[in-house]
Amino acid sequence: MSRIAYFGPQGTFTEQAARTLAPDDELVPVETTPSALAAVRAGEADAACVPVENSVEGPVTATLDSLAEDEPLVAVAEALLPVHFSVLARAEAGEIRTVASHPHALAQVRRWVEANLPGARPVATSSTAAAAVAVQNGEFDAAVTAPVAVEHYPLRVVATGVADVADARTRFLLVRRPGALPEPTGADRTSIVAAAPNRIGALSELLTELAFRGINLTRLDARPIKENFGHYLFFIDFEGHVAEPRIGDALAALRRRCSNVRFLGSHPRADGVRATIEPNAGNHDFTDAVDWVAAVRKGELA
Amino acid sequence: MSRIAYFGPQGTFTEQAARTLAPDDELVPVETTPSALAAVRAGEADAACVPVENSVEGPVTATLDSLAEDEPLVAVAEALLPVHFSVLARAEAGEIRTVASHPHALAQVRRWVEANLPGARPVATSSTAAAAVAVQNGEFDAAVTAPVAVEHYPLRVVATGVADVADARTRFLLVRRPGALPEPTGADRTSIVAAAPNRIGALSELLTELAFRGINLTRLDARPIKENFGHYLFFIDFEGHVAEPRIGDALAALRRRCSNVRFLGSHPRADGVRATIEPNAGNHDFTDAVDWVAAVRKGELA
Amino acid sequence: MSRIAYFGPQGTFTEQAARTLAPDDELVPVETTPSALAAVRAGEADAACVPVENSVEGPVTATLDSLAEDEPLVAVAEALLPVHFSVLARAEAGEIRTVASHPHALAQVRRWVEANLPGARPVATSSTAAAAVAVQNGEFDAAVTAPVAVEHYPLRVVATGVADVADARTRFLLVRRPGALPEPTGADRTSIVAAAPNRIGALSELLTELAFRGINLTRLDARPIKENFGHYLFFIDFEGHVAEPRIGDALAALRRRCSNVRFLGSHPRADGVRATIEPNAGNHDFTDAVDWVAAVRKGELA
Amino acid sequence: MSRIAYFGPQGTFTEQAARTLAPDDELVPVETTPSALAAVRAGEADAACVPVENSVEGPVTATLDSLAEDEPLVAVAEALLPVHFSVLARAEAGEIRTVASHPHALAQVRRWVEANLPGARPVATSSTAAAAVAVQNGEFDAAVTAPVAVEHYPLRVVATGVADVADARTRFLLVRRPGALPEPTGADRTSIVAAAPNRIGALSELLTELAFRGINLTRLDARPIKENFGHYLFFIDFEGHVAEPRIGDALAALRRRCSNVRFLGSHPRADGVRATIEPNAGNHDFTDAVDWVAAVRKGELA
Repeated sequence: MSRIAYFGPQGTFTEQAARTLAPDDELVPVETTPSALAAVRAGEADAACVPVENSVEGPVTATLDSLAEDEPLVAVAEALLPVHFSVLARAEAGEIRTVASHPHALAQVRRWVEANLPGARPVATSSTAAAAVAVQNGEFDAAVTAPVAVEHYPLRVVATGVADVADARTRFLLVRRPGALPEPTGADRTSIVAAAPNRIGALSELLTELAFRGINLTRLDARPIKENFGHYLFFIDFEGHVAEPRIGDALAALRRRCSNVRFLGSHPRADGVRATIEPNAGNHDFTDAVDWVAAVRKGELA
Repeated sequence: MSRIAYFGPQGTFTEQAARTLAPDDELVPVETTPSALAAVRAGEADAACVPVENSVEGPVTATLDSLAEDEPLVAVAEALLPVHFSVLARAEAGEIRTVASHPHALAQVRRWVEANLPGARPVATSSTAAAAVAVQNGEFDAAVTAPVAVEHYPLRVVATGVADVADARTRFLLVRRPGALPEPTGADRTSIVAAAPNRIGALSELLTELAFRGINLTRLDARPIKENFGHYLFFIDFEGHVAEPRIGDALAALRRRCSNVRFLGSHPRADGVRATIEPNAGNHDFTDAVDWVAAVRKGELA
Repeated sequence: MSRIAYFGPQGTFTEQAARTLAPDDELVPVETTPSALAAVRAGEADAACVPVENSVEGPVTATLDSLAEDEPLVAVAEALLPVHFSVLARAEAGEIRTVASHPHALAQVRRWVEANLPGARPVATSSTAAAAVAVQNGEFDAAVTAPVAVEHYPLRVVATGVADVADARTRFLLVRRPGALPEPTGADRTSIVAAAPNRIGALSELLTELAFRGINLTRLDARPIKENFGHYLFFIDFEGHVAEPRIGDALAALRRRCSNVRFLGSHPRADGVRATIEPNAGNHDFTDAVDWVAAVRKGELA
Repeated sequence: MSRIAYFGPQGTFTEQAARTLAPDDELVPVETTPSALAAVRAGEADAACVPVENSVEGPVTATLDSLAEDEPLVAVAEALLPVHFSVLARAEAGEIRTVASHPHALAQVRRWVEANLPGARPVATSSTAAAAVAVQNGEFDAAVTAPVAVEHYPLRVVATGVADVADARTRFLLVRRPGALPEPTGADRTSIVAAAPNRIGALSELLTELAFRGINLTRLDARPIKENFGHYLFFIDFEGHVAEPRIGDALAALRRRCSNVRFLGSHPRADGVRATIEPNAGNHDFTDAVDWVAAVRKGELA
């Protein structure tokens, strides 16, 4: 049984994702996302479950920055959780005067609270689970939490499936130290982070390398490197698995052109969406072309 | 005197930015960044001061999403604030057992707190200024705040210039309803948000349009549109002012190729960095080329 | 009535093209293609009819080089002639022992001659019409000529429609001094010659400028400039007319990026093939985008 | 000793090139350039020496078309000959009334003849050497020939180094059946012919594949395929040797994207110009990148 570190305490969305990704393993709560990754780097945990992207909030910068720096880690699986909250309380709904949660969570249920708990005052806590603890301790009247929290804290469920944006989702990664990669499935995602000089055209050329190989981008974040003014860091997600010839060919091109590229993992997509394959851009097209060059070099022209 | 809405209460970093951007105007605190923008749209304020980007945390999604949706607004100025905190307290430093602030602020001073206030427990509040209020009310011992907070709350300054990351900065925008644009200065920034179908190559081609005109990208965020699966939203910042021929030419190309483009503003850069101008990509090169085509059309070949 | 200079003597393919392009004008034979263009430059002729491209032989370098150098001239019309020869003789076919023509013509009927006039010896003359003259003078037995030659020389027609390659065609231009351009028809061709430094990527970027505007290339010839080692000359033909917004926009981009661009004309295509118009690349898309930028500059956001 | 077919008769420029390229081999004159290539394909000759490009006249279409069609052949060496003519005669210069040569040669010495042999009448022959034969036979007064002709025909040298364009040069290839390639030298040229659908952007993308790998184009000819309307044939020459990783990588990309690519050879350049190598585009950069991908696939991240 492996040890999986996650951003706790018990009852967070991250615990819920960790249960999905590692149902039979030991889940170990830690205080922050970076400390979950540090535990893996230090060998204190076998893997970490960390949020990487929220469809409303965007990238989880703390996760991405930690993956880009320090010792390399590799994502081997992902989970996609709907951001639907439960509202837990001690008292009757009519008597709720304070609603506690992580500020991000409060922001995502603001309209629901105004409509359903009029007059209730929002109170910030350090995590959604910490809010449940505080309600349990009598500090506040209600907590906005992940659905899983009810399993840990003996509170009454006021509402479930609460969310101002109906289809908001958070993507989580299961991250390990480098080692054997998951097998390609045809519905995979590959992630990298690349550093490049802030030369005009640098990013457009990198993306053209992917486009020319028919590779579908699924996310991009480009921003200055704080310690190195004039340089940029590109976090790029795209369809496909590094074991595929078409993806390996693209990664080699990016590697050659960037001052630095770090591979962040290839793993099955949680949504099961299969990669788009364009004409002349299937894996056999890439291997056929390489074979043709080998034949030309040997003086054999088919 | 204009009314400038900002994310309050008094004493936040946003107030500090608003003072820089509109020193002679009336500053009106509101509860959230989106409500500051809503106040401008509703005509209740003349402008809003909002955070748009943090060098550590990345883009401020709430601001960007609100600018991309609803009625168009235009940024007319920006301010760049170092993220240096002050620690304010009622009691002597030796007696500090709880440290309150917004969770983002707590994250950015964690190492400082561990080193300088060992054993102090972090407590989340809804803003840095709300922490100062709570300290003033006796709820907690110390608050991690914007430097400006000391002007509003009669607390003792334990430390200033506190930051785990020395050079972290937040960029703020002054946003108005559409109207006359600021004059170009040669050191300007233009921002747009573009929607495009998730066709392979769509983004690389848009960036190539900019690169081919020698325009320097300063930031890019590309992500799925939540309500429109398969479509992407690109937030793009680049050097230059829409009044310049070279920038107008580029914006026309982007407008033509995207299903939608929204102009978010052209204004002087807070850091005063002048735009890079590549050979054959100065404004006179663009106007000369247009003049040449006009001459060709008239049958005059110089 | 205008004076049209053409590569003579009477009876050449060029005369045949000139008759098509200028049926009511005075046709003036001159000795070479460059001298036809020189006559226009000197004002001795109003226009010249010159071959520009053969589907078997490729570009007519003498024409292209003369258009690229000296005083600018502009093509205002084109004709497309099938390269079908007539064989003219004094004597019976059985007695033909010598077959005269221009070497290019002899090359294009070699197989026909071997099959139909076995044993006949090919003899080179300076033009196809010169061969007819020589046959008339009794120097040789048969001439391979343009169909029109029979109208000038009283010879017997041995065969017509002779060609080893069935569908070979030559394209001819009617060239004038700069002045009013032909009206756009929707089925036009534009020609330019551009000089660019032999920087890696220079040509691919120029072609990308055209491709990004959805402009269909119809011919390209790229070669070193003989007097300027390291520089290249690109002869580029594409669909469309400079009066169109989409073409004007593309030409301005090429003009800006090249050390030199010369406009060689916009005129209806002889084959009547209408220009391909890609999505988002119609003329109204270009004008709409320019109008949008103008509105943005005025502070009006629709 | 090999048998080298060339476009004869003895005394042509092609013979002169063949002597340079195969000084110790048996040179076999044939009637045309295509028949020289046919002799190699049929095994009647070991190699052919053929002209491929003239700095004034452009590509030699007959050579390129024959290399693009029929059985594949491969160029293994090239020679670059200055196009300087000799003028050979029987009589004194004062008595020269007719000047014979191939029409291309006559075109390239027209100004010299007008200045130095005023009143002399130009007469076309099937080759420059055929003109020398005719002068020898008493048919004409003088012949414009390759310098080598004087070794075959006992004529008086009226002038040498004759050329209206001082630095015109013709490039010749030595072409064999597929087999072992010449070793790379660092100053090589690779030639291909590619067929691609006439999709907008097809050619710009192929050239971008080369540019993105830092490969310098030395010549390009793009034209419609006569039998396949709407398709284009691209003859592309560039610096480098297929045995190099950077060139092999580029050729694989072109092969994958084109409906057909034919390799026409990699061989040392006659002018000895070494390939330009751009930053990040040396052969070791390509092999390092491939090695990195292999390490990533094995789960080893350096």
